[in-house]
Amino acid sequence: MSAMECMVGYVVGIDLGGTKIATGIADSTGALISRFTVPTKAFAGHEVVVRQIIETIYQVIHDAKVNTDEVKAIGIGSPGPLDTGTGVVLGAPNLGWHNVPLARLISEEVGIPVYLDNDANLAALGELRFGAGRGTKNMFYVTWSTGIGGGIIMNGQVYRGGWGSAGEVGHMIMVEGGPLCGCGKRGCLEALASGRAIARRAVEKVKEGARTLTLTLAGDDPAAITAAIVGKAALRGDRLAVELLEEAAHYLGVGLANVVALLDPEVVVIGGGVSQLKDMLFPIVIQTIRENAVKGVSERVRVAAVELGRDVGLIGAICLALDPPYHGQAFGNIRR
Amino acid sequence: MSAMECMVGYVVGIDLGGTKIATGIADSTGALISRFTVPTKAFAGHEVVVRQIIETIYQVIHDAKVNTDEVKAIGIGSPGPLDTGTGVVLGAPNLGWHNVPLARLISEEVGIPVYLDNDANLAALGELRFGAGRGTKNMFYVTWSTGIGGGIIMNGQVYRGGWGSAGEVGHMIMVEGGPLCGCGKRGCLEALASGRAIARRAVEKVKEGARTLTLTLAGDDPAAITAAIVGKAALRGDRLAVELLEEAAHYLGVGLANVVALLDPEVVVIGGGVSQLKDMLFPIVIQTIRENAVKGVSERVRVAAVELGRDVGLIGAICLALDPPYHGQAFGNIRR
Repeated sequence: MSAMECMVGYVVGIDLGGTKIATGIADSTGALISRFTVPTKAFAGHEVVVRQIIETIYQVIHDAKVNTDEVKAIGIGSPGPLDTGTGVVLGAPNLGWHNVPLARLISEEVGIPVYLDNDANLAALGELRFGAGRGTKNMFYVTWSTGIGGGIIMNGQVYRGGWGSAGEVGHMIMVEGGPLCGCGKRGCLEALASGRAIARRAVEKVKEGARTLTLTLAGDDPAAITAAIVGKAALRGDRLAVELLEEAAHYLGVGLANVVALLDPEVVVIGGGVSQLKDMLFPIVIQTIRENAVKGVSERVRVAAVELGRDVGLIGAICLALDPPYHGQAFGNIRR
Repeated sequence: MSAMECMVGYVVGIDLGGTKIATGIADSTGALISRFTVPTKAFAGHEVVVRQIIETIYQVIHDAKVNTDEVKAIGIGSPGPLDTGTGVVLGAPNLGWHNVPLARLISEEVGIPVYLDNDANLAALGELRFGAGRGTKNMFYVTWSTGIGGGIIMNGQVYRGGWGSAGEVGHMIMVEGGPLCGCGKRGCLEALASGRAIARRAVEKVKEGARTLTLTLAGDDPAAITAAIVGKAALRGDRLAVELLEEAAHYLGVGLANVVALLDPEVVVIGGGVSQLKDMLFPIVIQTIRENAVKGVSERVRVAAVELGRDVGLIGAICLALDPPYHGQAFGNIRR
């Protein structure tokens, strides 16, 4: 990892998920010293989970043999939507949370500034500093997973937009009147190219009578079909599975071409579960971007897979703590 | 105009167009002191036009009774594509220019730093400081004209992207396999919603036998149909003309909804010739944005018409000179 000497001391990063809380402590270069992971007791309510988070913070500080007052900042990656300005989790379906002032609750307890941001922004920040975006200042990160999210890096900083919700590439309309999206609109990129969309298309095809290894791998239960199972079938050569994945890759490519037209990034970094099929799907995504982005831009933009793997959320949270937003988004500083 | 005390002295702004060169000198608050306009001798080649520009600079400096060494910077809005980093006009079809190092040619002659940017970025900057974007930091400006272009303001600065070509909203793909665009791709927003697209659709309808006042106003010559003529027919109640304009407004609204999803701007400012029909078309554009943008964002984003009118290019060029890019894009400073 490259040196980052913007501050002396230590930082803590936390990747808060519905199944686990991964917490790490790093020095001022971003190098991890110690880490600790616990299963999230999401069922027990937010007070219990906040207590778990605080315990992991004290645990990593203890394990690293550091004093609490040497820890300059804490970064948390949280499911959203969030209000990053006030550090409030507005809603997190997989945690059952609604309007939880997470930054304040933790900051009051541990006496350290707490910064909060969403998974996609932190993944973008992590990849910018330590992953596929190293050396660039203008980057677009896309999570190609059950849903589709995005993180924008402009001039070396996360761009959060007027109200903190920039980057929603998954809800750009690609096909007016197209398939219904979870957001209530039709024809969003997420409704055409996400893992959820891939699984839905496979179920549709099976119900139409298509024969596919996907169904066998799902135990002959259409309701059990997931994008991961479609991926397994495709890797074994199942033609329908390959077609569905290629269709999704094509839509993702067109969506990213539109992002490239608008943002002119130096690099587009693709992460998320579906992107693990990169040998099969990246050539299609890249070709579609080249064919559909603005001439002159489409040839020079680099398209790359994430490099940080499963730790991207934790490393992104550490990067947030190392280099918090200019305008002070820690609890206590209302951004607007 | 509001006070801007980022520098003491004067600045010159130039709006370089295919038909005229509009040059103005302003004080450090951006208030115009003197202005001068000449017809562009585009036919005579770039050396003559550069000479014209230099003469207008000396003219406004003289008229304002200012010393040349009190002028701190010159901003130029130029047709493009441009390399804003080196100040080179890469190509300008309506001027017949190819690789003209405009910033260097002028800077060497007058001894003042020269900054160059495209029309859309400067219009965005002008509207941000003195027009419909006042008080915001995150804005999207769209030119709805013969073509469709865009300018992005992020955190109060023009965002130019990795290679200076950010903002190309007109070349986002809206309908795959749709009508051919001037850029060579199909289904771009510009091919569906621009003035050129409106005129093309009217011609198609006329050739299919449609009866429309548009044709009469074009002297019964389909080849003479323009978007301005379609607009006139619509204002007189011609149903086909109204339909074609409403169709374009709808596509613009979907395109802007996608921009809003990605950038979460506080305000979208719409300028350009077609936008002059705002009483007829803005309600459709706004409703389409509200219906298609991400929930929560779509309701709060403000949509406004330009306020600066014909002077937007000149005022934008003055703003560029008042507050040049952080990373030094005047001639001599290669940006990357």
